Amino acid sequence: MAKKKLNIAMIGYDFMGRAHSNAWRQVGRFMADLPYEPVMKVVAGRTEAKVKEAAERLGWEEYATRWEDVIARKDIDIIDICTPGDSHMPIAIAAAQAKKHILCEKPLANTLADAEQMWKAAAKAGVMHMLCHNYRRCPAVALAKQLIDAGKIGKIYHYRGTYLQDWIVDPAFPRVWRLVKSRAGSGSLGDILSHTMDLSRYLVGEPVEVSALLETFITERPLPDNPSKKGAVDVDDAALSLVRYDNGAVGYLEGTRFATGRKNYNRFEINGAKGSIVWDLEQLNDLQLYIEEGPNSGFRTISVTDGKHPYVGAWWPPGHIIGYEHSFTHTVYDFLCAIAAQKLPSPSFEDGYKNQRVLDAIERSARDGKWVKIE
Amino acid sequence: MAKKKLNIAMIGYDFMGRAHSNAWRQVGRFMADLPYEPVMKVVAGRTEAKVKEAAERLGWEEYATRWEDVIARKDIDIIDICTPGDSHMPIAIAAAQAKKHILCEKPLANTLADAEQMWKAAAKAGVMHMLCHNYRRCPAVALAKQLIDAGKIGKIYHYRGTYLQDWIVDPAFPRVWRLVKSRAGSGSLGDILSHTMDLSRYLVGEPVEVSALLETFITERPLPDNPSKKGAVDVDDAALSLVRYDNGAVGYLEGTRFATGRKNYNRFEINGAKGSIVWDLEQLNDLQLYIEEGPNSGFRTISVTDGKHPYVGAWWPPGHIIGYEHSFTHTVYDFLCAIAAQKLPSPSFEDGYKNQRVLDAIERSARDGKWVKIE
Amino acid sequence: MAKKKLNIAMIGYDFMGRAHSNAWRQVGRFMADLPYEPVMKVVAGRTEAKVKEAAERLGWEEYATRWEDVIARKDIDIIDICTPGDSHMPIAIAAAQAKKHILCEKPLANTLADAEQMWKAAAKAGVMHMLCHNYRRCPAVALAKQLIDAGKIGKIYHYRGTYLQDWIVDPAFPRVWRLVKSRAGSGSLGDILSHTMDLSRYLVGEPVEVSALLETFITERPLPDNPSKKGAVDVDDAALSLVRYDNGAVGYLEGTRFATGRKNYNRFEINGAKGSIVWDLEQLNDLQLYIEEGPNSGFRTISVTDGKHPYVGAWWPPGHIIGYEHSFTHTVYDFLCAIAAQKLPSPSFEDGYKNQRVLDAIERSARDGKWVKIE
Amino acid sequence: MAKKKLNIAMIGYDFMGRAHSNAWRQVGRFMADLPYEPVMKVVAGRTEAKVKEAAERLGWEEYATRWEDVIARKDIDIIDICTPGDSHMPIAIAAAQAKKHILCEKPLANTLADAEQMWKAAAKAGVMHMLCHNYRRCPAVALAKQLIDAGKIGKIYHYRGTYLQDWIVDPAFPRVWRLVKSRAGSGSLGDILSHTMDLSRYLVGEPVEVSALLETFITERPLPDNPSKKGAVDVDDAALSLVRYDNGAVGYLEGTRFATGRKNYNRFEINGAKGSIVWDLEQLNDLQLYIEEGPNSGFRTISVTDGKHPYVGAWWPPGHIIGYEHSFTHTVYDFLCAIAAQKLPSPSFEDGYKNQRVLDAIERSARDGKWVKIE
Repeated sequence: MAKKKLNIAMIGYDFMGRAHSNAWRQVGRFMADLPYEPVMKVVAGRTEAKVKEAAERLGWEEYATRWEDVIARKDIDIIDICTPGDSHMPIAIAAAQAKKHILCEKPLANTLADAEQMWKAAAKAGVMHMLCHNYRRCPAVALAKQLIDAGKIGKIYHYRGTYLQDWIVDPAFPRVWRLVKSRAGSGSLGDILSHTMDLSRYLVGEPVEVSALLETFITERPLPDNPSKKGAVDVDDAALSLVRYDNGAVGYLEGTRFATGRKNYNRFEINGAKGSIVWDLEQLNDLQLYIEEGPNSGFRTISVTDGKHPYVGAWWPPGHIIGYEHSFTHTVYDFLCAIAAQKLPSPSFEDGYKNQRVLDAIERSARDGKWVKIE
Repeated sequence: MAKKKLNIAMIGYDFMGRAHSNAWRQVGRFMADLPYEPVMKVVAGRTEAKVKEAAERLGWEEYATRWEDVIARKDIDIIDICTPGDSHMPIAIAAAQAKKHILCEKPLANTLADAEQMWKAAAKAGVMHMLCHNYRRCPAVALAKQLIDAGKIGKIYHYRGTYLQDWIVDPAFPRVWRLVKSRAGSGSLGDILSHTMDLSRYLVGEPVEVSALLETFITERPLPDNPSKKGAVDVDDAALSLVRYDNGAVGYLEGTRFATGRKNYNRFEINGAKGSIVWDLEQLNDLQLYIEEGPNSGFRTISVTDGKHPYVGAWWPPGHIIGYEHSFTHTVYDFLCAIAAQKLPSPSFEDGYKNQRVLDAIERSARDGKWVKIE
Repeated sequence: MAKKKLNIAMIGYDFMGRAHSNAWRQVGRFMADLPYEPVMKVVAGRTEAKVKEAAERLGWEEYATRWEDVIARKDIDIIDICTPGDSHMPIAIAAAQAKKHILCEKPLANTLADAEQMWKAAAKAGVMHMLCHNYRRCPAVALAKQLIDAGKIGKIYHYRGTYLQDWIVDPAFPRVWRLVKSRAGSGSLGDILSHTMDLSRYLVGEPVEVSALLETFITERPLPDNPSKKGAVDVDDAALSLVRYDNGAVGYLEGTRFATGRKNYNRFEINGAKGSIVWDLEQLNDLQLYIEEGPNSGFRTISVTDGKHPYVGAWWPPGHIIGYEHSFTHTVYDFLCAIAAQKLPSPSFEDGYKNQRVLDAIERSARDGKWVKIE
Repeated sequence: MAKKKLNIAMIGYDFMGRAHSNAWRQVGRFMADLPYEPVMKVVAGRTEAKVKEAAERLGWEEYATRWEDVIARKDIDIIDICTPGDSHMPIAIAAAQAKKHILCEKPLANTLADAEQMWKAAAKAGVMHMLCHNYRRCPAVALAKQLIDAGKIGKIYHYRGTYLQDWIVDPAFPRVWRLVKSRAGSGSLGDILSHTMDLSRYLVGEPVEVSALLETFITERPLPDNPSKKGAVDVDDAALSLVRYDNGAVGYLEGTRFATGRKNYNRFEINGAKGSIVWDLEQLNDLQLYIEEGPNSGFRTISVTDGKHPYVGAWWPPGHIIGYEHSFTHTVYDFLCAIAAQKLPSPSFEDGYKNQRVLDAIERSARDGKWVKIE
């Protein structure tokens, strides 16, 4: 029996658009129990030549140059927002008002106020809303969540989450849009620390207080269009924060683009009363697990590639690893399941708002040089 | 400008059929300079209900229950053989005679004589033929090849290739077709040692002499359809071989299904006069490289995820890893490029034959308890 | 020609006394160019039976029950202080006044004021003084220092130093002296974070500002002598601090005794403009080094066991690793060399004072919930 | 109460003499329950100036230039043989006849016939005899033995032991005595493969059949005393062997001096029906253990530094690693305990003979190009 079709419209078609398109194409091929057949109906972008080319390359039936037109269409069920953060709010609110289900790239918005509006609008509209913190859907992270919820590592004392990259260490690297506050909202804080913050909220608890520093090591860089001129970098190159959680755990979170040699080193270590868990995105199929059971205990490396592990049954036999983009496929899978069940997925826009609230507190803490409570 | 279309017919739709289908679906989405547009025209299999379901799930336009019919079709350009080894020969020879280009899963055939016939038939027909030893197309392996060809590790002295799995350690595991000589040809020898042999022929040189042992640890197992009865296991559980190469290097190759804890541990280490290289399929994005340059030398782990690395530019930014199935996408990419260039791809059926010749020598060496020359 | 003898008196004979005794016994056996012959003359401790036994077991010619008597001896050249932190000050000042050279276990003192007095007294006396931060003398750490000083990793941006242990995770673990502020001064802060702080001052620069938190997860524990009663734990179980350095680098330092599975995980990662360095005490013979040189760069593991590496020539051939206690042997070697050269060793008491000053700032920052400048 | 003294005489004072001397010096300091007090009475060597210097540096009371004189002494209880292999036989037989207990460096002898004579002589004399295969006494190896004996990994299927070094990869490296058959007996076979063979006999079982190859990659080298002339290398640079064990396990053993980047990489992997064990001398404090217990199984790294682990209680707290030389200290400890218990230690000369018998079979197998049975 054929599955019911849901029509997708994607806004934006850059890096994240590529990853989301792949997910929409692949999800039905591998997830046998997918509740719908997603139809890649239309992709929207401002520049016609580019969006047309993208539609063809990425597999969208149609393209459009105005996102407003796309949202206005009756036949569209889902809006998938892949644009930079400064446009998330208007698109999401319009989509909510048009009663579309919404999947939105992170960060939810560039300001806390925007994020709150988006959450309220989506909640009021009664649509399903989800923020694409795709790393929650790496099988090893999902397994970590299962193990923690089952009490395997006991009460949590420590979270250390460091997301390290190095793509702008070279001072000659140009001032791209991600280095401009008005476009990107923030630097490594919103781009990558936001991921490790989301992971800590997922795995550990709610932050209640932060003390942070933000640092911009290189304060001006060549302009992309005119390298002979320099422009100011007004976002953080590195963000470091101490965190206290509601359950008494203490944490350290860091995002930096100045860790030479670390390409995409999104690592966390969680220490609990009975064990510990370590994960690193660069080896995303592995989970390190320590369970205290006497002198012969040790950190074991679990290859999270067994059919009984989360999501993995859909793919290959044990020991056959999956890649970065699979986390997006798992995300849209869970999103479609949530629509079918009419049960909000996680992270929802509420999570996005709460995450943003902590990032906002981190910015204020760094600015004022003091601890800031989350409230 | 639209690319010329090539119509594909795939025979078989099991594990390998899934992996090949994914490759055909994905290759055009990511490889911008692909010379053709591959069209997934038809999949063939004996059981109608199953092949019909597979066609839909895997994305083939049509299905067929007789491979002979598929080969007879004028509109088919490429035959992709994904069946067990015992049927490779008749399919391939028919495909060659019908002037189809042929991609064939490994091992080329269950016997050396069959393999030779396939190679001769394909060569005579003048079609492009390729054996799917997909691990050559893991970016890290392709990088290893580049480094070796560039002389970075100097003259090669040692190759150690071990392909370790553990899926039949449990004596209660049933006697599936892979454990029956008449279907599978051999056990771990043809299934996995064949991969590490192919890698050594690719990276090191041609084997000239072998001394081997084959061992079946558990000689009977429950029948899949009637577990209360047992059937004989007449293939090897483990295959171990010493190898001498034409360039003076010495090697050790092993395939086993009795290495508890090793799921898909296809590892090689190559030692040369100036450096060494290590790779492991379970961490397929990494290459370990040692270059001798004094006391501060060390094995470095290269994350083979940079846009300048082989194949990688088509995927994601540095540090965003890819998975097992991407190696098939790269294989069909190279196959299509070879068709466009009318230049035989590697490994061709000739390689498949030569590989088989060594596996055959290993079997004879194990049987007779003596060194066997490859000739 | 016989070397000049120097007579050593060691105060304290517990864990550190064992390690120091071993160093004094071994240093002359392995360091061929040692400028003196150290003579293990006398060990002092309060309990006669115990100190007598210790003298015999550890290889001291004599024992004494009052350290004052030992310092008063004319024939003693060096006082080696291995007692808990609360007695360091009076011993060191008496030793300085008696013109003895002084080696002192860390932390220098339990209070900043004590530490300053010790430094001033030793400086005024003109004796050689050294704090035993032995990890500086692990060959891999010494190599890291050489590489940094040679500019191999360029300007430093990040230091992450975490010293993780787990020996008191169990709430039933008794309230030993290390958990009592009046004896130990502080908890993980002075015991282990002090080491990673010293390493950062050695390798990175001078801290200028800190924001910290101290946490005691388990606030009372069974008394050692009467487990049916509980006593308060008034030191930190975990200490976490953000740090700004004088050269613009930012850092994170942590010491904790609640990282289940981490036994002695004293790890640092340093990111510079041109490369990065990682080290971990549990694999103390290895140094991980990343030098940026294009796509084939990677973290290499240097086995710091080559005769050309610092200190290593005295021991075994390449690949034959050394252990924890060797760092003490290297420390007393450098101390004796400093005496011969009449050139203050590093870390001196001044370093100890400066280190203590930062630890003191961390305590105040944690207490007051704000950034504290080091001045 | 003072312990009974045993007087030691050591013959030879080179690399192994240094390691043994250290063991004799240290054993009483750390092993509280040592049954004797070993007295380092006399060291013997042919060149007076050198042996005199060695006696002083290594801590021997006296020196002698003829080993015969030393053996003739009534006051000597133990002869410790640290000379090259070609002199082991006469020394050991004389020592046995003089009723001295004998500790002998490996290999027991350069020929099988010599080894047998030594064993018979020692057995006939009724003295304690031990071969110094010190790696059995690394705590992690001793723990592996305990785990295997307790059935933790079940019936053993595979042993892979590779001892890789690289010190003679450079063709300009001189033809030292270890490269001359008349002195060294063999090359990597007796020097390092002998270690991995001993480990397999200790941990797995008795070899019953071998098929091997020996290879000399560089057949002449500069003479040490006259580099302008070259001399023949008549020992193996690399030795590779397939092995069948009496219990049905199959193995691969290799020793090579041509594995660039591998300094002292003595690694084994053992696969059993229920689990696996991996160890590597370059990280000698760690044991990797896999126990099959479902999808969340994984190789765990045990830091074999806990007080409950073999030998470790004598040293430092958990996580404080020990070094290469400690394995010798543990060896002499067990030797002294064996003397006290009048119970032959392991490996005895009988083990040495049996080990040699396999090495001899490997040489014949390599020469004749066929499998050779051990009998």
